[in-house]
Amino acid sequence: MNNPSEELSSLRWNSTRGLVEIIDQTALPHDVRWVALDSLDAYCHAINAMQVRGAPLIGVTAAFGLAQALAEDASDFALRSAYAALLATRPTAVNLRWALDQVSDAVRDLAGSERVALAHSKALALREADIKSCASIGDHGLGLLRDRGKGDVINVLTHCNAGWLATVQWGTALAPVYKAHAQGLPVHVWVSETRPRNQGMFLTAWELQRAGVPCTLVADNSCGQLISDGKVDCVIVGSDRTAANGDVCNKVGTYLKALAAQAHDVPFYVALPASTIDWKCASGADIPIEQRDTNELLHAEGLDNQGVARSVRMAGPAVVAHNPAFDVTPAQLVTALITDQGTFEASTAGLADLQQRMSKEAGAAPASQAGVA
Amino acid sequence: MNNPSEELSSLRWNSTRGLVEIIDQTALPHDVRWVALDSLDAYCHAINAMQVRGAPLIGVTAAFGLAQALAEDASDFALRSAYAALLATRPTAVNLRWALDQVSDAVRDLAGSERVALAHSKALALREADIKSCASIGDHGLGLLRDRGKGDVINVLTHCNAGWLATVQWGTALAPVYKAHAQGLPVHVWVSETRPRNQGMFLTAWELQRAGVPCTLVADNSCGQLISDGKVDCVIVGSDRTAANGDVCNKVGTYLKALAAQAHDVPFYVALPASTIDWKCASGADIPIEQRDTNELLHAEGLDNQGVARSVRMAGPAVVAHNPAFDVTPAQLVTALITDQGTFEASTAGLADLQQRMSKEAGAAPASQAGVA
Repeated sequence: MNNPSEELSSLRWNSTRGLVEIIDQTALPHDVRWVALDSLDAYCHAINAMQVRGAPLIGVTAAFGLAQALAEDASDFALRSAYAALLATRPTAVNLRWALDQVSDAVRDLAGSERVALAHSKALALREADIKSCASIGDHGLGLLRDRGKGDVINVLTHCNAGWLATVQWGTALAPVYKAHAQGLPVHVWVSETRPRNQGMFLTAWELQRAGVPCTLVADNSCGQLISDGKVDCVIVGSDRTAANGDVCNKVGTYLKALAAQAHDVPFYVALPASTIDWKCASGADIPIEQRDTNELLHAEGLDNQGVARSVRMAGPAVVAHNPAFDVTPAQLVTALITDQGTFEASTAGLADLQQRMSKEAGAAPASQAGVA
Repeated sequence: MNNPSEELSSLRWNSTRGLVEIIDQTALPHDVRWVALDSLDAYCHAINAMQVRGAPLIGVTAAFGLAQALAEDASDFALRSAYAALLATRPTAVNLRWALDQVSDAVRDLAGSERVALAHSKALALREADIKSCASIGDHGLGLLRDRGKGDVINVLTHCNAGWLATVQWGTALAPVYKAHAQGLPVHVWVSETRPRNQGMFLTAWELQRAGVPCTLVADNSCGQLISDGKVDCVIVGSDRTAANGDVCNKVGTYLKALAAQAHDVPFYVALPASTIDWKCASGADIPIEQRDTNELLHAEGLDNQGVARSVRMAGPAVVAHNPAFDVTPAQLVTALITDQGTFEASTAGLADLQQRMSKEAGAAPASQAGVA
């Protein structure tokens, strides 16, 4: 079962309407809103306003966006300006440029009349490739989960959102969970809320519920005691950027969970497409940590008692805050990297093995950061 | 300088008006509201509605409440019923019963006419004893801070609220910080927001600002990287209950900070009045962990863009959550216990030393949980 349902997909091709539809992730979890992308402007807005997020999903969306732009105007000028407009939507998402190049390079030398169909089929192929890559991560992780289960419920702790909302389907960290669930294995997920942006609460809890996977939301602060109490069989997280020595840069708070897992001999897995390893980055010390607007920490969003969406300021006046988006988990705390190419040791040697396997593969994706949240 | 200012006090005796005034902590950080407690009902409401919290402060407030009740009616019946009414406000706060007993025992055998003055002076004495105890914690902790500072800014990380809002003045974990600040040492506090109830954001950041101590709010998730980056010279937290072997039960999230501190050889101190050690509790495994209403996790409180206080539901519908209030930090992760009796090793041997010293002291407070938050 490689495709559980198009309902568990963040981006779908509506062949009847002849256009792409996405879940507007800014409206989750309170409103499930499918948005049809029917113009280049709609694509640019979807990426820029973070209606879609997660680097794999951004890349696929941008590829369809370029195909849409060519359907509107297939000239060289239109191709160049659409490429630039889409690239500018999220300047730091390296997958975005890679996906745009895939489509642009394929159509550049064609006559205008031939460009539309090829761009569209290229975008569809990128979508399928992402689904296949994530499904493969799921298959490789499934064996690890099964080993932990011993017939009882398998309790997985995850952080942030690395599920099907961050990719097209399956996700990275959650792909093994969905594979296990699809095979009838009893699996339960502890979802850490992931302050300050609450991706665990807003996205992960929602997408697991949608898939029928039992899950329980906890404060990030609770995860140490959960692990120490033996309530966690393994931790699986995604990775925004993985260094060549196996150090993992992921959503802030990942490192604390890795420390607790190590203290109690609980496996700590990082799931990622092999394409997202940054081979030029020797170690986590070389990864710059993005500092984000402190309002993310000082405010909260939700529905008031009338069901009206509101933002409230939690903090008092003049509070100074510090809001790094990511942290680095040293490779020695990572039990294994679960990739679409198999599972590998998080070490220079392990990644060299992976690189060797990848060099035999065609059409490798870019060495880039993958999980822009 | 034992008393920086009555302004940095959570409960004050207004001798002009002849009554107690408290800061309504439910209104913080957006509104600083001093509430005069002018009836037994007002005292009961203040404790029950958590306008005052923190076991030391609850105890002192209740003592004044009993004095107030006797001023209204000094009969045996009134004494018994006021005792019962105050005790029922927070049934699990052991300090509450202890403080009520101190006053009640002192006045029981007196004629009604003599009860009021003695009850009042007893309550004032309890207030002074709490201030003295916290100041002593501060003095003992100050030396440890000075050792870490080496002339530069001393960066302290704390969790939850164990400052002057949780006691009468000074606090426990923050007492050494205030002592350092009063002596002109450059000290800066990293305040973790302390999800899910945000005591760090709502109370600790506010009280440090009020005292003029530089501080920076961070997500709980950020604390691992802060420590790993060398930005924390020591961690100081309070304790809700300390076992006889030195295991510390404190606000959930404390344990993760202790793990990170150990991983980077950063001292992890726990500050507490020696009276709050639970000698009957052999280890942290014997401490039941309170499970609280999950709405604390699913909702947030703050001001909307019109400045109106609102509660919003952050989580989606039907989210299942788990909300333990505390966790246990094993003694071996605790560098030292900073108490009013001096600093001690967090171990059975260290606590035996402390117990020996305490047995020489008169009027020891109860073996109880001290920091009900």
